[in-house]
Amino acid sequence: MNEVNAAIITIGDELLIGQTIDTNSAFIAQELNKTGIWVKRRIAIGDVREDILNALREQSRDCNLIIITGGLGPTADDITKPTLCEYFGGKLVLHQPTLEHVTYLFEHVFRRPMPLLERNRRQAEVPDVCTVLKNERGTAPGMWFEKDNVFFVSLPGVPHEMKGLMLDSVIPKLKKTFKLPVVLHRNLLTSGIGESLLADHIADFENDLPSHIKLAYLPAYGMVRLRLTSRGSDKNSVENELDNLFIQLKSFVKKWMVTDEDISLPEAVLNLLQSKKKTVSTAESCTGGNIAHLITSIPGSSASYNGSVVSYANDAKENLLGVKRETLLQFGAVSEQTVVEMVNGALKELKTDYAIATSGIMGPDGGTPEKPVGTVWIAVGNNKKIIALQHSFRFDRERNIELTTHNALSMLYRFVKEEEGE
Amino acid sequence: MNEVNAAIITIGDELLIGQTIDTNSAFIAQELNKTGIWVKRRIAIGDVREDILNALREQSRDCNLIIITGGLGPTADDITKPTLCEYFGGKLVLHQPTLEHVTYLFEHVFRRPMPLLERNRRQAEVPDVCTVLKNERGTAPGMWFEKDNVFFVSLPGVPHEMKGLMLDSVIPKLKKTFKLPVVLHRNLLTSGIGESLLADHIADFENDLPSHIKLAYLPAYGMVRLRLTSRGSDKNSVENELDNLFIQLKSFVKKWMVTDEDISLPEAVLNLLQSKKKTVSTAESCTGGNIAHLITSIPGSSASYNGSVVSYANDAKENLLGVKRETLLQFGAVSEQTVVEMVNGALKELKTDYAIATSGIMGPDGGTPEKPVGTVWIAVGNNKKIIALQHSFRFDRERNIELTTHNALSMLYRFVKEEEGE
Repeated sequence: MNEVNAAIITIGDELLIGQTIDTNSAFIAQELNKTGIWVKRRIAIGDVREDILNALREQSRDCNLIIITGGLGPTADDITKPTLCEYFGGKLVLHQPTLEHVTYLFEHVFRRPMPLLERNRRQAEVPDVCTVLKNERGTAPGMWFEKDNVFFVSLPGVPHEMKGLMLDSVIPKLKKTFKLPVVLHRNLLTSGIGESLLADHIADFENDLPSHIKLAYLPAYGMVRLRLTSRGSDKNSVENELDNLFIQLKSFVKKWMVTDEDISLPEAVLNLLQSKKKTVSTAESCTGGNIAHLITSIPGSSASYNGSVVSYANDAKENLLGVKRETLLQFGAVSEQTVVEMVNGALKELKTDYAIATSGIMGPDGGTPEKPVGTVWIAVGNNKKIIALQHSFRFDRERNIELTTHNALSMLYRFVKEEEGE
Repeated sequence: MNEVNAAIITIGDELLIGQTIDTNSAFIAQELNKTGIWVKRRIAIGDVREDILNALREQSRDCNLIIITGGLGPTADDITKPTLCEYFGGKLVLHQPTLEHVTYLFEHVFRRPMPLLERNRRQAEVPDVCTVLKNERGTAPGMWFEKDNVFFVSLPGVPHEMKGLMLDSVIPKLKKTFKLPVVLHRNLLTSGIGESLLADHIADFENDLPSHIKLAYLPAYGMVRLRLTSRGSDKNSVENELDNLFIQLKSFVKKWMVTDEDISLPEAVLNLLQSKKKTVSTAESCTGGNIAHLITSIPGSSASYNGSVVSYANDAKENLLGVKRETLLQFGAVSEQTVVEMVNGALKELKTDYAIATSGIMGPDGGTPEKPVGTVWIAVGNNKKIIALQHSFRFDRERNIELTTHNALSMLYRFVKEEEGE
């Protein structure tokens, strides 16, 4: 078994000025981790020859796998590819199969027929010291290098192209190249308890863990995910030990556990609904469609989700959800009465078993002394029962929207569990 | 004027296994950049003493400002804070004002009254060689260190706490500490032209740029943002030169330019509507609320945006938007006829001047030979005119949703411009 330590290098000025959020590194780290490869370091540098050379040199000191993304677009690879040639001691040559692939994409696949420019043709040039990895989804190919027992993989920065190359080429090649350890994770999601209290509650369990097993706390949107990780050489023994510990951990946190799978809260909600053959709809004011967006991002969500009325204007609350004008006038749009009527409207208009409604003041403007920014009402219910809760968040608009969304989903999850007799 | 080179170090195993996407670094990079500080490198490492020490040592070789985030939660700071003490040669002491602040938060601010645990109390312990930066939004304080003319700032990893500390404490302190250069950017957003063609179109302009001015191509969702950046010591001369070049650049790309401000496409749409005192609504099937979510994430959007009907189920298209059953039966939900009727429904039910409608097959399932995954219809219109366009995207669900969203907004933008006689 080889110990594989990986580094991820992302190249591009846009990362250093903060114009782009680096989602590639997270994806690559996840996939490597699943395969049993530990990512020791992630580093982002600009489109600068010296910085690229330094990064390659420094990272290969204590890592034997370096994954590089970015710096390969038609307007960007003037620096990266010559620099790779310099580092690995090769020269750029035209790679005929890549040129054919690029030509094919331009002639047959790209929506608008586009002329093949000289700079597109140059995307088919690669260092003559690499193995070319075909990029089915785009023009810039992946490249695989080896130098002094360190493996280097260069991938384009466009996320869906990078993902295709990682899954189709890089991971299979890594499995052939290294004899990898077994790394397994078990995840659970808790709601309704803070990180500190949770840590105190399971302190004895944590202290008794063997040293090759790690427990991580991953707080997000008022929830905490716990992750147990183990590694070893024998899959069965790693799995058995981890499963036993996971059963213990679950019994300690039973009261707050939302799901014991490595899935998001919207996925847990959808799985629960699907297993009970029930449907849900949403009536969103302050979350502005974010609950709908998170649910509909999940493949197959249409089986349990009928839709949403995003009633941003009060008119829409009346017209589309049947909220009474008197309710809006007497109690206001951000009130228990309004969200309860919104739930009823969604149940009726979208014909679902369950519904969620949200209304609140997300900020930065719109607050009043009685209802300051962060005041939120959430209701969930079915035809028999509706419950509503007020929250007072204290954060910025973006976070208030996320917190309201996740609290609403977690409230629905508990409500459905109770109503369906679990 | 000091040359300030910054490095950002994020600490946390969750970044190395890819469970968390690093949005903090992008925010920090943006804010530093605005202030005239160039971020040379971003690096992410695990909660490992040696890796932290190495990163601090290595980054301070060629950077004189190191911003550290993460590793300071109530369950995480057992490693980071002692390691900072070791690196800077101090010891942990209780910081009384922080303890009072933490106690206050626990007693008066946190929604559920929570007991103050020993591990919360320890958050008020800081190395005795740092300047404490008060964290108004949470319990873990910021810390400011200096060693051999390099400045180090340690911030908590919770995004909204980090943001508060950056804006309220760190940036003002940096402006006092360094005499900073002027760095200015000009941004414009294009739509309807690919990166390569655009680059060819402005090749002469780009080649003639002086060396202290950079042009960057930032492609996203079928659009390309162009950014001109200049730096110097005199604000007026930097600004004049940059503005002149920006006018030239704009004249070259006029045909494809959506906005010449550094704002997102949804912001450009809202600004345009607001300046014309017009409103918009959406009828979303395949985008599932994502257009509504992007629009309502912008403060003040309620002035121009009335809401959305997320008609995921066909029933909802009929009930809430008045799409005719015959239309759905004859042409299907993903058709020109359906999106046109959806626009009419949204205009009527949500009482707006303009409306957008989307319907498509996002994948991975649901495709047919006639309408494969990626088939999307988008319509925009007002009471006088409705236009509809079919797209064939080829990507994964997430990207298809984003592409549809951005194409719909860009289509609306052009439509409104034309209708309002610009």
